[in-house]
Amino acid sequence: MRNFNFDTATRILFGKGKVNEMTPEILASGSRILLAYGGGSIKKIGLYDKVVELLNANDIFFVELSGIQPNPRISSVREGVELCRKHKLDFILAVGGGSVLDCCKAIAAGVPYQGDPWDFMMMKATVQEPLPIGTILTLAATGSEMNGNAVISNEETLEKRAMGSQLLRPVFSVLDPTYTFTVDKWNTAAGVTDIMSHIFELYFTPEKGTHVQDMLAEGLLKTCIHYGPILLEQPNNYEARANIMWASTLALNGLLAAGKIPGDWATHGIEHELSAIYDITHGAGLAIVHPAWMEYVLDENNAWKFAQLARNVWGVKDEVDMSAARKGIAAVKQFFSSLGMPVSLKEADIDDLHLTEMGKKACLFGSIGLMKKLNPEDVTAILTSAI
Amino acid sequence: MRNFNFDTATRILFGKGKVNEMTPEILASGSRILLAYGGGSIKKIGLYDKVVELLNANDIFFVELSGIQPNPRISSVREGVELCRKHKLDFILAVGGGSVLDCCKAIAAGVPYQGDPWDFMMMKATVQEPLPIGTILTLAATGSEMNGNAVISNEETLEKRAMGSQLLRPVFSVLDPTYTFTVDKWNTAAGVTDIMSHIFELYFTPEKGTHVQDMLAEGLLKTCIHYGPILLEQPNNYEARANIMWASTLALNGLLAAGKIPGDWATHGIEHELSAIYDITHGAGLAIVHPAWMEYVLDENNAWKFAQLARNVWGVKDEVDMSAARKGIAAVKQFFSSLGMPVSLKEADIDDLHLTEMGKKACLFGSIGLMKKLNPEDVTAILTSAI
Repeated sequence: MRNFNFDTATRILFGKGKVNEMTPEILASGSRILLAYGGGSIKKIGLYDKVVELLNANDIFFVELSGIQPNPRISSVREGVELCRKHKLDFILAVGGGSVLDCCKAIAAGVPYQGDPWDFMMMKATVQEPLPIGTILTLAATGSEMNGNAVISNEETLEKRAMGSQLLRPVFSVLDPTYTFTVDKWNTAAGVTDIMSHIFELYFTPEKGTHVQDMLAEGLLKTCIHYGPILLEQPNNYEARANIMWASTLALNGLLAAGKIPGDWATHGIEHELSAIYDITHGAGLAIVHPAWMEYVLDENNAWKFAQLARNVWGVKDEVDMSAARKGIAAVKQFFSSLGMPVSLKEADIDDLHLTEMGKKACLFGSIGLMKKLNPEDVTAILTSAI
Repeated sequence: MRNFNFDTATRILFGKGKVNEMTPEILASGSRILLAYGGGSIKKIGLYDKVVELLNANDIFFVELSGIQPNPRISSVREGVELCRKHKLDFILAVGGGSVLDCCKAIAAGVPYQGDPWDFMMMKATVQEPLPIGTILTLAATGSEMNGNAVISNEETLEKRAMGSQLLRPVFSVLDPTYTFTVDKWNTAAGVTDIMSHIFELYFTPEKGTHVQDMLAEGLLKTCIHYGPILLEQPNNYEARANIMWASTLALNGLLAAGKIPGDWATHGIEHELSAIYDITHGAGLAIVHPAWMEYVLDENNAWKFAQLARNVWGVKDEVDMSAARKGIAAVKQFFSSLGMPVSLKEADIDDLHLTEMGKKACLFGSIGLMKKLNPEDVTAILTSAI
């Protein structure tokens, strides 16, 4: 096991009605807030009214930033930064899914930064003294509610890139599973896929001896596999929504990475190229890329780990590592497909015109991945195998 | 899943040599410290010299409190409180196992409290503005390094009781697995038993739908079952020590309890009566009581949960809940025995003279336990079944 530091900056308020405990958490960090959200979904479920009522009841000044889109755009970040500066805001309340949260993190970093916020994505700037953030989550998927990561798209350059800083971890996050009752089948399935993909990224590292981390990861995967199909049939099942929501948070809050190499992340890198060009739902892109990545990187040296997944999570009985590994990968692909996710580019109506370009862009800062170091040709080969 | 709040106040510094990162953490909270430890073991492994060197190199004033014993005594707590007051100390550094850590928590609570610190154990006082604590752990067992709990013995009244407050969570804990290399077989096995017992206490609650928590608990149990026997043969196996140490911390840092009824805890209550009178190693007492408790509380209503443990952790194939449950309980008992732990009172040279008295004392504040509410007669019956 590797040396590590572990702490969690974010206070989680989990459960039905927990939004009512939010205002003291806000007031501990700020008094003039940016209220940021996406489309109208938070209005439909009554959450917008509830938040405004709580802010008004506590005389908290707020300015709104709405219309933040899935695969959040750098233009929204710039707009948020301007609003914060203009109104001298000192706290950001992000209400929505991972896209809203990620956008708000980039805004928080951008406010005190004199350059363009896209610089963070291009590794030209580091985060310093960002505004504090609180979140109210409405989609279980990205884990953004308890970590310092953000992924932002540049609609001009068709790029989608990540930034991260421990300073960007929210000070609190309200996780109320009832806010996810109205998430449709497609986005629910994409969310479950995203959660599982995060766990895979952290699970598949070329090291041995991380038993605790492996057991926790396998446990969270089993929760996803158990409740994913239930949610497609019973969207208002509180138990299922709650378990998926908490699994989502724990999948990417540092727990599974502590003591390990912090993940492979090639699949996410490749998927970012897909959704940057085709604006596909992130989870759907992952459902296409992750099984293809697994098949491509599997070799004699790492088959033991894929076989461990197959046996412990999918109940594969095969004692030969390589064939057990292949059965496990097939099970992953089959599961994503059973959730209604595409598992090939064709199923997502994605053509083969940009495969070489995506390979190059995915490796802009050098080779990616750890289980196998991938160069642009490898990435193109993985995408080609997923046609 | 129940509503919950989750945060972790303790910063974990995990791994070989991590003590070198300790002094900034101390200086963030205090400058005049109580250096508390037990017997000579920290001197034998060179840790005492290392700590003193670090404190001196940073001009940190310190006063020593040594000789804190296993099943730490209220007299040590009183001595520590006096030292802190006399020297105007503002931080406590606990170096040792759970006993030292627990003693230091009681001291931290006792310093600003005007009454006798035993009042905390008797529920006559609540913790307010305790001194901050940091810890360097030398035994993987109690989980005290990342929670606000403490268990203290009163040598005059032969009582052993718990106290707890979120305010008592250490501000940092150094977890260096190499400090546990010299822990002998007996205490290593007792530590593994204690960890598993904590997980059982949290796992066995009369509620359904806590899938995430169950999966995490089962995962940590599997880590204990995997590495426990290895450690008895290879005490210097870093991977095994590290996994057990991290499992120990995660078992009782709030993660497994979040979203659940926070545990049954009858077994710990009963064991405290055993070790209060007979001064038996806590883990050894748990190895006797926990299987006996399982056999006693098992019934038609809760067999499903014992069966779940049997199937998921011990690989029991039986499809009938009640018989699967019994096989799982037998596996727990057999495992503790294989570690060299006693699984009956006789094996621990404990007579049957105090079984009724222990039943009464365990229920001093009313019935205990959740899977089955236990009155004094039940406790006596459980102990009798363990003769």
